[in-house]
Amino acid sequence: MSDSFEGAAIIGQSGGPTAVINQSLVGVVEGLRENGQITKILGMRHGVSGLVARDVVDLTQTPQDVLDAVAQTPSAALGSTREKPDRDYCVKIAEACRELGVRYFFYVGGNDSSDACRIVNESAREVGYEMRCFHVPKTVDNDLMESDHTPGFPSAARFVASAFRADSRDNASIPGVKINVVMGRHAGFLTAAAALAREDENDGPHLIYLPEVAFDTDRFIADVERVYSKIGRCQVAVSEGIANAEGVAIGATLIENAQTDDHGNVQLSGSGALGDQLSNLVKKGITPTGGRSLRVRADTFGYLQRCWPDPSPIDSVEARGVGRFAAGLANEGHVDGSVAIVRTGSGVGSEAYASKYKRIELTDVAAKTKHMDPSFFAGKIDVSQGFMDYCEPLVGELPRFGAL
Amino acid sequence: MSDSFEGAAIIGQSGGPTAVINQSLVGVVEGLRENGQITKILGMRHGVSGLVARDVVDLTQTPQDVLDAVAQTPSAALGSTREKPDRDYCVKIAEACRELGVRYFFYVGGNDSSDACRIVNESAREVGYEMRCFHVPKTVDNDLMESDHTPGFPSAARFVASAFRADSRDNASIPGVKINVVMGRHAGFLTAAAALAREDENDGPHLIYLPEVAFDTDRFIADVERVYSKIGRCQVAVSEGIANAEGVAIGATLIENAQTDDHGNVQLSGSGALGDQLSNLVKKGITPTGGRSLRVRADTFGYLQRCWPDPSPIDSVEARGVGRFAAGLANEGHVDGSVAIVRTGSGVGSEAYASKYKRIELTDVAAKTKHMDPSFFAGKIDVSQGFMDYCEPLVGELPRFGAL
Repeated sequence: MSDSFEGAAIIGQSGGPTAVINQSLVGVVEGLRENGQITKILGMRHGVSGLVARDVVDLTQTPQDVLDAVAQTPSAALGSTREKPDRDYCVKIAEACRELGVRYFFYVGGNDSSDACRIVNESAREVGYEMRCFHVPKTVDNDLMESDHTPGFPSAARFVASAFRADSRDNASIPGVKINVVMGRHAGFLTAAAALAREDENDGPHLIYLPEVAFDTDRFIADVERVYSKIGRCQVAVSEGIANAEGVAIGATLIENAQTDDHGNVQLSGSGALGDQLSNLVKKGITPTGGRSLRVRADTFGYLQRCWPDPSPIDSVEARGVGRFAAGLANEGHVDGSVAIVRTGSGVGSEAYASKYKRIELTDVAAKTKHMDPSFFAGKIDVSQGFMDYCEPLVGELPRFGAL
Repeated sequence: MSDSFEGAAIIGQSGGPTAVINQSLVGVVEGLRENGQITKILGMRHGVSGLVARDVVDLTQTPQDVLDAVAQTPSAALGSTREKPDRDYCVKIAEACRELGVRYFFYVGGNDSSDACRIVNESAREVGYEMRCFHVPKTVDNDLMESDHTPGFPSAARFVASAFRADSRDNASIPGVKINVVMGRHAGFLTAAAALAREDENDGPHLIYLPEVAFDTDRFIADVERVYSKIGRCQVAVSEGIANAEGVAIGATLIENAQTDDHGNVQLSGSGALGDQLSNLVKKGITPTGGRSLRVRADTFGYLQRCWPDPSPIDSVEARGVGRFAAGLANEGHVDGSVAIVRTGSGVGSEAYASKYKRIELTDVAAKTKHMDPSFFAGKIDVSQGFMDYCEPLVGELPRFGAL
């Protein structure tokens, strides 16, 4: 497919950052350095908004030791943006690229970013400027189509599983009801990863509530009461995206002056309102026998889930890999595309974990959301062994605890 | 001081657990095994409430590999309690000890636990049963008198500093105002530790609010606005214990159905209410120039601060050490006492960090609270280099980040 298409390349990062999004950035830079047709490698400050404002940084000569340090740094080193480019905006992007001599456009982000990539590509064509646009996947939500999983998810899942494992011991130390709210607007993968925390039969999480399963307040109280009366404590994993039977996200209705981004997403993170509301429901709804009031606490894990500086080793390698692979697509002469991770070794039992990358169409991933496979649920309040087998190989070794 | 005083020993854990409280438990067990007069080593399940209910576990023969695994496990392996024993309760404790043949009583906890130790000692004397009671310090709040610092604090400070360092990158990725609420009812040490996160001039936290400095809402808004207009973002560290000029804890007034423990402490943790309230104040109080609304988010770090399974190496060693030292006091024939950590090497510049343990009186630490030294403050919204020099050697190596 190799052909002649000389020009500069530009890379941007978009959407909620992850612990390994800079691995992908560095992977793209490293991959492009192998391409003789790339005259210059630029980075956009804060995604397309930086590009339009001509706020770019030259990465052509950035030393390898700086790249390696950046790769191990959480959150978007170039800066990210929540800006959703419409047609007019994309024309401005194409014009900026033409002015900067940019022929190769790489955007690291979620499904919204893939869509942006697609529109930039079309807009460039419309203004008669030929460009090649590539999407590099990332999202802690793990909700991109075609991929076994997305870069960023394993590290966030590692944080969530570690947090639940440690917090379950805290909950056992001073028994009560403990509610932990986990990120995930529409897909429950990250909340489901809490299940990896369990080492023994009575370990938490004892209840798991996902956005894919309609949340019912009365059933929630009854679930908590049943677990508490059986083992004297209850650790609960709740997705920030839980919705009622009508599909309305409960958390979004609780945050005072909730903010909405350009994609129409109402703020769910950066507030403890959902946890506090659920905590209050339990305090009012359950009166334990024996007089003592029930101890109820809620934590909302918040942004640490996506930036905690102890990434999954597999995630670090794969995030770098998808970046390099996307650059490779450009180097091979592809005119556009996104990258998916394909699992080639299950990582279960005696079979080692292994994966490879493949090119997919931008439209395969753009503005679509992958949900958890029905086989991943075990009833309404737990996940299946199938999910455990899927998730466990991704997160790396978790701390192991002792007991008396 | 050695004399003859044969009998069983019992160990309990009390109050909010820490990441290294089991190191102290194991340290006591190991130390007591060197004492030929100790006939048996017991553990109380959930502190004195387990003792009174005769819910104890025999640790005399627990294998070393189990002890080592437990030592590296966060939260109280024996279970903890918030129970505050009054005189009557302490008589029951003394009776339980007499029945179990317990002559040596060890209680791992904060200043309330030291007080409990003291009362148990007196109660036993009153009922004519001779006992020897020792307090082993722990608390993430770092607020015990006589000690340079307390076991549990360095690990919690390590979590807080790591969290702020990573979250500052997240805040720089998608600029806005980010408020992080940190544990600490009366003492600001843990919130102050956020300052260790800074690597470069513009890194967060940009503002630090401690319980020792009266919190003023108008000044808070003005502080945030000043930082935001200067660098386009603002990361804020707020203690859950911040109080107004009248000394009223602001957070305690915000939690719906807030719960109060036996020590009269009103619930501050396990709720996002304070962060949400401050977040809302900023949303309403600041209108940025340029039209776009100000992005404001709040996270409350919660219980992960005291159980995160990546303890400070120094903390792990010292927590084990104070346990062994307390057992040593008993072995040497002391009849009571608590343990303080004394810093003998500053850990600043070319001087290595070093510490030793010393015996202090139970009354030196019982029911007293240590506050931050005035020299640790730098104005109303930051900490001094003196605090940094004090804190930095304790937390161990923090992750280092790169930048473009």
